[in-house]
Amino acid sequence: MPCPIARSLDRVGEWWSILILREAFAGATRFDDFQRALPIAPTTLTRRLNGLVDAGLLERRPYSTRPVRHEYVLTRVGRDFRPVLIALLAWGNRHFAPEGPAVVLTNRATGRVVNPILIEARTGQPITPRTHRFAAGPHAPASLRKRLEAHA
Amino acid sequence: MPCPIARSLDRVGEWWSILILREAFAGATRFDDFQRALPIAPTTLTRRLNGLVDAGLLERRPYSTRPVRHEYVLTRVGRDFRPVLIALLAWGNRHFAPEGPAVVLTNRATGRVVNPILIEARTGQPITPRTHRFAAGPHAPASLRKRLEAHA
Repeated sequence: MPCPIARSLDRVGEWWSILILREAFAGATRFDDFQRALPIAPTTLTRRLNGLVDAGLLERRPYSTRPVRHEYVLTRVGRDFRPVLIALLAWGNRHFAPEGPAVVLTNRATGRVVNPILIEARTGQPITPRTHRFAAGPHAPASLRKRLEAHA
Repeated sequence: MPCPIARSLDRVGEWWSILILREAFAGATRFDDFQRALPIAPTTLTRRLNGLVDAGLLERRPYSTRPVRHEYVLTRVGRDFRPVLIALLAWGNRHFAPEGPAVVLTNRATGRVVNPILIEARTGQPITPRTHRFAAGPHAPASLRKRLEAHA
């Protein structure tokens, strides 16, 4: 599918894959780190870690030779997933944390809890449904272009 | 799980659910709209639409009484998912569209393609790994708090 959202989900469209990335951003690198943090069967964890390596989000690096052991480190593609996690965090805290948040995003310098919003990088204008829309890009197939323009 | 990312994924942790939301943001409301846009079996589509209704992201509304037919409209919780889709779009275009983007985010007033970034709502400071981190919120269980602080 040409849609960039569909292609992104191809890489991380598994509940577990996204939680594994969450742990990687929280500092997990070794199999045992992920295993301790997530209620996931070892075989499933192995499969998901391999999937994220194959998709180019994690890199497998040896950290011990006898026995051979590997750790999993975020690649640049993986690190660039962070805004998606932050958007999920903000959405979850807004709607599904009636008792108060368990995880927040804070400013390292001030320690303050921050509320993330999306803006245009170039102009600083906030991105809202009224001001911004999804549109066909240069490589949109005709059917996708038609659907996007029908609801512009 | 108390983590807001995990709770969010509980609502939309299915590839199809996210693509159904993508279509809802693109203007789809009726079963046939979703069916035409997505290569998904009708039974799966019905199941996913019902799941999104149960999770509070879509609302089922009658639009015809004879025969009774319903459409699916984004709720406020569903509309608030848009930044997650925009973050996925940006990530997909950055890394998985070597031939050029099929879908872009544009400014309605200027028609320009925009590059979305996350900032602090209050101060406007860009959110980066160097300046911001995930931290334990007031309702973090002890184990989650420990893990988040170990890698601060």
